[in-house]
Amino acid sequence: MASDSQYAAPEGGARPVQGVELAAASAGLKSGGQLDVALLRLSPGSRTAAVFTRNAFTAAPIHVARRHLARGEARALLVNAGCANAATGAAGEDDAEATCAAAGRACGVEAEAVLPFSTGVIGQRLVDRAPMTAIEAAIASCGKGLAPGRWLEAARAIMTTDTWPKVASREVSLSQGTVNVTGMAKGSGMIRPDMATMLGFVATDAVVDSVEVDRMLRDAVDASFHCITVDGDTSTNDAVTFTATGATGVTPDGEADRGALDEAVRGVCVDLAQAIVRDAEGATRFIEVSVEQGRGVDESRAVALTVAHSPLVKTALFGGDPNWGRILAAVGRADVPALDGTGVDIDLGTMPVVESGQPVPGFDEARAAAIVAEPSVRITIRLGRGEANAHMWTSDLSYDYVHINADYHT
Amino acid sequence: MASDSQYAAPEGGARPVQGVELAAASAGLKSGGQLDVALLRLSPGSRTAAVFTRNAFTAAPIHVARRHLARGEARALLVNAGCANAATGAAGEDDAEATCAAAGRACGVEAEAVLPFSTGVIGQRLVDRAPMTAIEAAIASCGKGLAPGRWLEAARAIMTTDTWPKVASREVSLSQGTVNVTGMAKGSGMIRPDMATMLGFVATDAVVDSVEVDRMLRDAVDASFHCITVDGDTSTNDAVTFTATGATGVTPDGEADRGALDEAVRGVCVDLAQAIVRDAEGATRFIEVSVEQGRGVDESRAVALTVAHSPLVKTALFGGDPNWGRILAAVGRADVPALDGTGVDIDLGTMPVVESGQPVPGFDEARAAAIVAEPSVRITIRLGRGEANAHMWTSDLSYDYVHINADYHT
Repeated sequence: MASDSQYAAPEGGARPVQGVELAAASAGLKSGGQLDVALLRLSPGSRTAAVFTRNAFTAAPIHVARRHLARGEARALLVNAGCANAATGAAGEDDAEATCAAAGRACGVEAEAVLPFSTGVIGQRLVDRAPMTAIEAAIASCGKGLAPGRWLEAARAIMTTDTWPKVASREVSLSQGTVNVTGMAKGSGMIRPDMATMLGFVATDAVVDSVEVDRMLRDAVDASFHCITVDGDTSTNDAVTFTATGATGVTPDGEADRGALDEAVRGVCVDLAQAIVRDAEGATRFIEVSVEQGRGVDESRAVALTVAHSPLVKTALFGGDPNWGRILAAVGRADVPALDGTGVDIDLGTMPVVESGQPVPGFDEARAAAIVAEPSVRITIRLGRGEANAHMWTSDLSYDYVHINADYHT
Repeated sequence: MASDSQYAAPEGGARPVQGVELAAASAGLKSGGQLDVALLRLSPGSRTAAVFTRNAFTAAPIHVARRHLARGEARALLVNAGCANAATGAAGEDDAEATCAAAGRACGVEAEAVLPFSTGVIGQRLVDRAPMTAIEAAIASCGKGLAPGRWLEAARAIMTTDTWPKVASREVSLSQGTVNVTGMAKGSGMIRPDMATMLGFVATDAVVDSVEVDRMLRDAVDASFHCITVDGDTSTNDAVTFTATGATGVTPDGEADRGALDEAVRGVCVDLAQAIVRDAEGATRFIEVSVEQGRGVDESRAVALTVAHSPLVKTALFGGDPNWGRILAAVGRADVPALDGTGVDIDLGTMPVVESGQPVPGFDEARAAAIVAEPSVRITIRLGRGEANAHMWTSDLSYDYVHINADYHT
């Protein structure tokens, strides 16, 4: 859908974050010697928060990461692709602990200070895909290569069906000085993390306390990754972390500073979330479903989700068909209590196609078709019930989606 | 997926139901002179119940059918395909009333005794596709051709993206004599009526009172069409009717009779519902997702739905890939409260692939692949929490699904 370089290098590149060093290596978990292990060392004093999947079949590394995070501050993040280490039971947790021990040795920190993350095939142990000695050797070689400038390489190592590495970055001028916010993510499932593991790792070198790190992460995730997902509707391995290393010594001072840093973290997360949708399996279009005038955010969000999840809407958009009837039918089944269909308007781009629940008489179908044939399509739905807005980002449903998912090996 | 004859002619054919006469004609609502209008005349004394869509954008004919049914007993059913007469406002209701008037004239009954049903493109009026005079002429010609033996022809007239006409039939021996139950349906969307209009019309010539007709319909729909749908998750035009003409004069007598008739009505509805799934757009496999050992039917049903709706599961099955990991991930996000993953088993066909939340060690992947490459695949999931069972019928997700839905014209 887009060239590697288009998304790989955000304006100004992936700015190094002071206090974060990265490296990547190949452990043989993916085929052909591809990079499949990424290690991030975090400087002493770093504060890290995480949001984990709510799937009932939480993968082994998620269990271990939760335990380690509960014990104390994280000093390293270890990510592998190729094997999700999910549905692997106690043996899977032992494997994850073994990789943490290796990462601890590589970074000069305790094993319990390492948070492990995995993505890839479910139901195989790491050691079913590569000998533990090979995995440990790859982690050790990462330890020797750690450097602040290797975000892109690390982002490449954590890819599965992604077609390009996803990094995003912001520079923020605060009263005391300049700080950086940089993140990387992987994910290319359709629109819900339940459809493919989503991982995200974001860091800043500003000084932020633990409570605030947690709040900033939750706010940013709500405004970004949760707009391509369903709350609680997650895969076995999803996780997003946010780390403040404090390595610049720059503390946000006052509302303006805090707002600017918040916005930078949110912006990085939005960039990464949108990159996942743009790289959605087989996607040919980026679609924003914007729902306005709901009675509450929950109902606006429910309508946005129902439309964004509709295979009929998504196949129509793949076909470049401005099929407002399918959008209307999806709105109608979104379980909005006592929805008055005659109060609903729909725009494609800036063009009204439905007013008061009926097609706009004589609307220009050729123009509507041109709008939905664009690489980015915005659908606006006004419910006429209140003032609450919500939006979802999604992609179309193409032949390639079927191809990729029918052929991905168990 | 199957030859027309395979499903068009259930064993013994579509048995005529005494008191039901049918005909079909072409009004020009579909292209190329195809049959697109079906008329069913019901004998005096018939009792009819109906289940309608809960979509907020209920189509004009649904409004009119509800009104007419509330006024008194139905004496005719009028169905057109090609145009859904949905999102057409007051003008759409006027059009539907006009077609009822024509059907009333054709059948020699009041216009208010006619229940109208439409399926096809949303947002166009009937008169946008064919002149009302042509529609009225088609209805009049139906009136001249009414005959008890024309179920299959009527079933063909109500098709949209269906690839074969769907009829089902049962003969039932009751204490007082033999009665018939015959039905027809249209629908070929994926698995939810929200994805394509589903219509069903079932009749018996037994004597059944109004209250019992209503109960029998609701029970049968729960066991059939609702197993390919989400309660309340419906399109603008969905409807199922059940009529007892009483024309045989045979009244079910005692529990055994009532049970036999119930089972026949349910059996006809199950046949029709399964035919819709088998004819699902682009389907290459029929899939039953059976969930056992839930704490209640609701949670077993929720799990069955989540698995049956998962595009990742459906594309894997299209690819003949026994991807139990995707099934497990779908079970895990079905919002079952405090689900213990280690209590979950999964069988493909009769072969255990997951036990206690983990893959069965060394299970035969080649055999599993052969099982899911069959035309019919059964997935059994045991939750280990209780005794409540539920099932859903669905289809796989193929290239052709995308093709059909990307190209269907607005």
